[in-house]
Amino acid sequence: MWGGRFAEGPSSIMREINASIPFDKALWRQDIAASKAHAAMLGACGIVSAEDAKAIEAGLDRVAAEYEAEGVPEDWSLEDIHMTTESRLAELIGAAAGRLHTGRSRNDQVATDFRLWVRDAIDQVDAGLEALQRALVMRAAEHADSIMPGFTHLQTAQPVTLGHHLMAYYEMFRRDRSRFADARKRANESPLGSAALAGTGFPIDREMTAQALGFDKPTANSLDSVSDRDFALDYLMSAAQCSLHLSRLAEEFIIWASQPFGFVRLPDSLSTGSSIMPQKKNPDAAELVRGHAGRIVGSAVSLMVTMKGLPLAYSKDMQDDKPPVFEAASLLSLSVAAMTGMVAEAQFRTDRMRQAAELGYATATDLADWLVRQAGIPFREAHHITGAAVKLAESRGIALEALSLADLQAIDARIGEGVYAALSVEASVAVRASHGGTAPVEVRKRIAEAREALGMGG
Amino acid sequence: MWGGRFAEGPSSIMREINASIPFDKALWRQDIAASKAHAAMLGACGIVSAEDAKAIEAGLDRVAAEYEAEGVPEDWSLEDIHMTTESRLAELIGAAAGRLHTGRSRNDQVATDFRLWVRDAIDQVDAGLEALQRALVMRAAEHADSIMPGFTHLQTAQPVTLGHHLMAYYEMFRRDRSRFADARKRANESPLGSAALAGTGFPIDREMTAQALGFDKPTANSLDSVSDRDFALDYLMSAAQCSLHLSRLAEEFIIWASQPFGFVRLPDSLSTGSSIMPQKKNPDAAELVRGHAGRIVGSAVSLMVTMKGLPLAYSKDMQDDKPPVFEAASLLSLSVAAMTGMVAEAQFRTDRMRQAAELGYATATDLADWLVRQAGIPFREAHHITGAAVKLAESRGIALEALSLADLQAIDARIGEGVYAALSVEASVAVRASHGGTAPVEVRKRIAEAREALGMGG
Amino acid sequence: MWGGRFAEGPSSIMREINASIPFDKALWRQDIAASKAHAAMLGACGIVSAEDAKAIEAGLDRVAAEYEAEGVPEDWSLEDIHMTTESRLAELIGAAAGRLHTGRSRNDQVATDFRLWVRDAIDQVDAGLEALQRALVMRAAEHADSIMPGFTHLQTAQPVTLGHHLMAYYEMFRRDRSRFADARKRANESPLGSAALAGTGFPIDREMTAQALGFDKPTANSLDSVSDRDFALDYLMSAAQCSLHLSRLAEEFIIWASQPFGFVRLPDSLSTGSSIMPQKKNPDAAELVRGHAGRIVGSAVSLMVTMKGLPLAYSKDMQDDKPPVFEAASLLSLSVAAMTGMVAEAQFRTDRMRQAAELGYATATDLADWLVRQAGIPFREAHHITGAAVKLAESRGIALEALSLADLQAIDARIGEGVYAALSVEASVAVRASHGGTAPVEVRKRIAEAREALGMGG
Amino acid sequence: MWGGRFAEGPSSIMREINASIPFDKALWRQDIAASKAHAAMLGACGIVSAEDAKAIEAGLDRVAAEYEAEGVPEDWSLEDIHMTTESRLAELIGAAAGRLHTGRSRNDQVATDFRLWVRDAIDQVDAGLEALQRALVMRAAEHADSIMPGFTHLQTAQPVTLGHHLMAYYEMFRRDRSRFADARKRANESPLGSAALAGTGFPIDREMTAQALGFDKPTANSLDSVSDRDFALDYLMSAAQCSLHLSRLAEEFIIWASQPFGFVRLPDSLSTGSSIMPQKKNPDAAELVRGHAGRIVGSAVSLMVTMKGLPLAYSKDMQDDKPPVFEAASLLSLSVAAMTGMVAEAQFRTDRMRQAAELGYATATDLADWLVRQAGIPFREAHHITGAAVKLAESRGIALEALSLADLQAIDARIGEGVYAALSVEASVAVRASHGGTAPVEVRKRIAEAREALGMGG
Repeated sequence: MWGGRFAEGPSSIMREINASIPFDKALWRQDIAASKAHAAMLGACGIVSAEDAKAIEAGLDRVAAEYEAEGVPEDWSLEDIHMTTESRLAELIGAAAGRLHTGRSRNDQVATDFRLWVRDAIDQVDAGLEALQRALVMRAAEHADSIMPGFTHLQTAQPVTLGHHLMAYYEMFRRDRSRFADARKRANESPLGSAALAGTGFPIDREMTAQALGFDKPTANSLDSVSDRDFALDYLMSAAQCSLHLSRLAEEFIIWASQPFGFVRLPDSLSTGSSIMPQKKNPDAAELVRGHAGRIVGSAVSLMVTMKGLPLAYSKDMQDDKPPVFEAASLLSLSVAAMTGMVAEAQFRTDRMRQAAELGYATATDLADWLVRQAGIPFREAHHITGAAVKLAESRGIALEALSLADLQAIDARIGEGVYAALSVEASVAVRASHGGTAPVEVRKRIAEAREALGMGG
Repeated sequence: MWGGRFAEGPSSIMREINASIPFDKALWRQDIAASKAHAAMLGACGIVSAEDAKAIEAGLDRVAAEYEAEGVPEDWSLEDIHMTTESRLAELIGAAAGRLHTGRSRNDQVATDFRLWVRDAIDQVDAGLEALQRALVMRAAEHADSIMPGFTHLQTAQPVTLGHHLMAYYEMFRRDRSRFADARKRANESPLGSAALAGTGFPIDREMTAQALGFDKPTANSLDSVSDRDFALDYLMSAAQCSLHLSRLAEEFIIWASQPFGFVRLPDSLSTGSSIMPQKKNPDAAELVRGHAGRIVGSAVSLMVTMKGLPLAYSKDMQDDKPPVFEAASLLSLSVAAMTGMVAEAQFRTDRMRQAAELGYATATDLADWLVRQAGIPFREAHHITGAAVKLAESRGIALEALSLADLQAIDARIGEGVYAALSVEASVAVRASHGGTAPVEVRKRIAEAREALGMGG
Repeated sequence: MWGGRFAEGPSSIMREINASIPFDKALWRQDIAASKAHAAMLGACGIVSAEDAKAIEAGLDRVAAEYEAEGVPEDWSLEDIHMTTESRLAELIGAAAGRLHTGRSRNDQVATDFRLWVRDAIDQVDAGLEALQRALVMRAAEHADSIMPGFTHLQTAQPVTLGHHLMAYYEMFRRDRSRFADARKRANESPLGSAALAGTGFPIDREMTAQALGFDKPTANSLDSVSDRDFALDYLMSAAQCSLHLSRLAEEFIIWASQPFGFVRLPDSLSTGSSIMPQKKNPDAAELVRGHAGRIVGSAVSLMVTMKGLPLAYSKDMQDDKPPVFEAASLLSLSVAAMTGMVAEAQFRTDRMRQAAELGYATATDLADWLVRQAGIPFREAHHITGAAVKLAESRGIALEALSLADLQAIDARIGEGVYAALSVEASVAVRASHGGTAPVEVRKRIAEAREALGMGG
Repeated sequence: MWGGRFAEGPSSIMREINASIPFDKALWRQDIAASKAHAAMLGACGIVSAEDAKAIEAGLDRVAAEYEAEGVPEDWSLEDIHMTTESRLAELIGAAAGRLHTGRSRNDQVATDFRLWVRDAIDQVDAGLEALQRALVMRAAEHADSIMPGFTHLQTAQPVTLGHHLMAYYEMFRRDRSRFADARKRANESPLGSAALAGTGFPIDREMTAQALGFDKPTANSLDSVSDRDFALDYLMSAAQCSLHLSRLAEEFIIWASQPFGFVRLPDSLSTGSSIMPQKKNPDAAELVRGHAGRIVGSAVSLMVTMKGLPLAYSKDMQDDKPPVFEAASLLSLSVAAMTGMVAEAQFRTDRMRQAAELGYATATDLADWLVRQAGIPFREAHHITGAAVKLAESRGIALEALSLADLQAIDARIGEGVYAALSVEASVAVRASHGGTAPVEVRKRIAEAREALGMGG
């Protein structure tokens, strides 16, 4: 295809390092669509004859049908999906096939195909994340009152509700979806017609192909269009952040499923056993989700390193843009699906959670707050008084509310009978009704808003 | 400050690893502003008395004045900027200072401060990028007709104009600004009042503090609010992508300044010499910009790794969020400024550029296109014919247009006299008037749009 | 210092981006040492007079004394530590100072200084890791018999001893030390005298300076010597791997300190409290160690990205080698010290550990192994039989050994009375005496070997 | 295989996320070898009968033959290569197959297989790097006298020889080989027999299997053995550093092949053309090598992130260790081969190199050095005088040696006629005969040493 001035063919090592067909065949749908749009435009603009345009479009449909039925052939000497398709087209329709490449180059062609692919990947992950959010909201609604220990530093901090906890992840995935949406918007410009790097002298209509392919508009600078992989990086960085959120949720399921916690029983369908230990039921899916975060972050790093310091315009290094994106998309899609299943089907052991919430002096802050409110003591002082009470209770191995009033008053005389009402985990949770707080009434408001945002009805 | 239940003070190694004051003192302005907003709200909601609220606000103003005048003291035993400020406040106004921390925790406080800081950093880099865009547009306007070789694979590809080339970077920085704007929008919610993790029982008004601090609204989930560092990651990932664009521009200046290219003379003010080689004038600023991309990417990786797999809610690991952000912001700000100076002051050697454009058979595509247009030959065939012409010219060491018509017709009889008009670099550039193409008329349209977008007048 | 051919001074932005003195002043000891070695050699080789050499050496000693007493001044116009020192030397001894830079360049000078610094950093971290290993061995010896649940997938798997668990980390840090030792060996060649890039025409003796500075030999290629930062990358990659090991140990302490586990009480001296929750005792040091892994990995990535694609020889990008190394070294040193304190002072709650080991059917494998050994059943079949027994016990909420013999024989008739002896956690641990296994007798052998390797006596 | 206690089978998403057979089938040779060694040991130790051991070994040979002939089948329900092989073994030899898994677990099995694989990968890359070094040495010998401009900051610095330049890369790959050798040594311990995590009660002989598989010895701690992926990280980090060196060499070929440099003609066999620009000959192989550095660095990051913060012992996250290693190994192997071809077959345009060396005032340092040596002027002063000379020559657009003696003496009266001899590029190169310097005599010494180290004869 570029042999006119070449004396010698590529060596076998060159053939192997150069061939992208083993991975870029994943772009075949996008490549066919973009070529059809280009052909139609060439016909409409009179750059090729109406018959040729028609023949090309019909030929491309036949190629697509073949790919659909038999897969894309991998002939390294045809290098990539573009040449593979064009070469098959030539076999099918003859010389007219040679007119398809008028006014474009592989540089803008691959940029177009890959943008289309990334756009689809964004739409898919968005749907997956929406399903995950729905699962979270369903389970949160079920557990808006279920009390569990809230942790900071993995130390029991204050009681919260499981519903509140699950809704924290709803928020993370909301931001992820917004990030993917931003990426989509920024990606949705058509590079087609930028040609090799400088645009073309043929009277093409870039608006027309942009519109046919669902792009908002054509890109503004041909040099940039063939050198730009921001859309792939935007995707990878959004995927990386999303994978970090998934890794956090996975970590929690793993810790919660551990015997000393025992907060959750994972569904058999998302667990595995051991080849040697017959009692094992392992949270493999969650671990793989957590592990995949490493590979998704690694994918983002790959492309950042590859793009660093490349002069304009297209350089072949950019061919290394696809494997990281394909890998990240596949791992992310699996991870989102696995966590959706996990959230939907996990059996939360709310008895164990509540029991744990009652240990660890989780309502100590409520004692301090009571002192501020009822006795008008500045918070810093109330904090110190409470610390002394915790120390006393801990030394006796009992709960805070098991201290007698006399014990408490020995620490600070301003403590009164009423304090005991503040020390139950229910009271602790119920009182935290500030906007976004853990009080069930507040959590239910957030759930209602989420249901509305997700179109889940009232 | 948390000693109530502690028998023993921190060891010296603990003091050192734990103290964040050496770096988080950079947040002092944000910390004072957030505390003032919180105090005013506590007063307005009747949680503290009006006098106490006033005393706190006035006291905070005094602390701020001290910091402004003398810097923030670094006392490791006070751990961080929050305790440093509150402790000084207590010295200045006494017990009322202890009421400031009502209904909040350091967990939401630092999240609030850091969001405010990141928001400011975004505004600053946006202003810097706008200045860089203006410089690009100015120089592009100056060189809309200056012909240079366009490269792909760093091989001479087709002639382009320098203005077109510079405008490619305008597009990159336009996307960067849009990415930072997305990050800003997503970050602009107030976590203040989320307290330690669960919200608070005090009747605080989170809308009020959100508004006072310029946030769009309060965050929706307290657990998420203290565990979330997406805003920092969004910043770092935007910074990383921007630094990659800067690294590409820097690479080009470095290559262009190299003697064999000689496309540019860098300003003395942005170059350095050698301690041993007296003739040297090195593009140090550009190299440092390129090198800084490594550190900015590394900063983004840092925080991704740190956040991976952290269970809810706040964990101390998150204290490692600030150094990477501070470092990236400082390096990025310097890099943008340096490249702005470089673009504005570089002396482009347009004679050398044009001379280079005429070598390397840059107009071979124009020969192929001519064959398509004038002789109706399919592009693939035209490409082969042209390849043969290039090979002949190369074997004689002459330019394409130096081949005689007889020579050309020996290769393909359909070639006519008219072809010579297509082979000049001016003709090549002028004909590429497709949308976003390199034709001066097209480049000027893009420049006009850019000037309008930047408010630079017609 | 390089002004001869420059018409105009550096702009303020250039001064700021270019100045490395704010960080490379950390190299002052190495810079003085290398300059003294160079001066002595110049004198010995007759390149400068004996008096000049002496004057230079004495002057450098005075500069060193000043730095020691007052710190290194930060004058950006002197750029770096090399010029800062040479400029002060000139003030002190006059014109002879100008002879010091004969036969060398800043390019080889900084490569030499930085190798010396990295060598010192390796020696320091090696000492720190040795101390950490000693702490692990001491605690392992104390707990060679203490039974705890061994986890895989954070699920109870088989009983192990705490001593065995701690010795797993001994092994990790042993590999880390070996990795640092490899890095040190590879780094220990002297680039001094490579000059700017091409070597020098002065009759210098590179063996002499190499020996004076404790290097094994001079480097073999001057172009490589000034372009090579492998020694810094070797350091960073070793640091990154070490930080990952530390992050794993930290994660375990964090999980173990969590109330539901309760396997460990952390020393007050390495914990902190909460500004709002008076009962909190947070494992901050462990969390910071875990978080620092992110920044250390990020540092390694920084320099990899910076070095990617740099042509020979020295480029200014390489100035970005030092901040990541300095940061990683500081974070790693703190992390090692913090974990050493944690290991040495943690109060292991062996009662809780043992109790947990008895839950979770940790000895199910022992039942399967008994079936293989006593009844000659293939392992795969024994595994299935045991699975059924676990299922039965689980459904009744009892331990495996609480099943009656009749129950067990109903599952498989070949099970006999003798099986009960195999089901205690002590028996389970004691039997695993394969090389490297968890049996106390085996763990003690490994401890003895470790004590010998560390020179801790018998 | 672990179904005994499971009520429900895995969901389809679980099957997909959990199955490692699509990639770990690459381990089949290692898996068979390790199983054979294990079976032989079980027989020798009387743990299984001699007949069973024999049957297992013979069966494994048959499985291996099948894999060799037909490939490894991918049945997701068999999860991984271990179960795939054992299941086929059971079909072939019946119940005895169930005895193979005595005294081992998949946890130590996969650790063993993967170490063997990595060891092989190291041996392969070492051979590849040796071939690359030989190519470098051959071309360096050919061009030990060929003068080219040495660059720093990509600015002409001092003349060097092409042989010297190529030998700089010899040094880099020498360090890479030493790094891989260190990694190999550290990896070469056998985890086999560590079983699930705690060792085993069967009287196995780990020395015997270690020896059979070519390991130096068995590992010392079973918990560590199944949790450790240092050997994979050591490989990846060595690969990453090697890829950075390759990226630098690739960058140079790309710049050198660019028309304005024209220092090299790349072999047709390692170049490609353009689908649109008929004159193009692109350095694709070099660009792909440079781009691959991004993916290899990304692979190293992947596994670092995955391993961060994992508690002991084996977690399923570790299954994500293989794809990055397999990808890095494949990319590295191709990259090394491509660069070997490039080095061996590149046509260096020494005329263009020499011409470039004579521009750019490359011998200015020689003027300064002459002043030091002949006129006894301190180097700093000589540097200033030379700077003035360069400025004068530059202002006239002539070479340094084209300045008249009068001109030079007007700058500094101490300059004499003899200076002109120092200003030729040959003289400049010849004089730099310090150890490791660019003088041909010195370069030839290094080449001789390299030939000896590579066993290439005198």
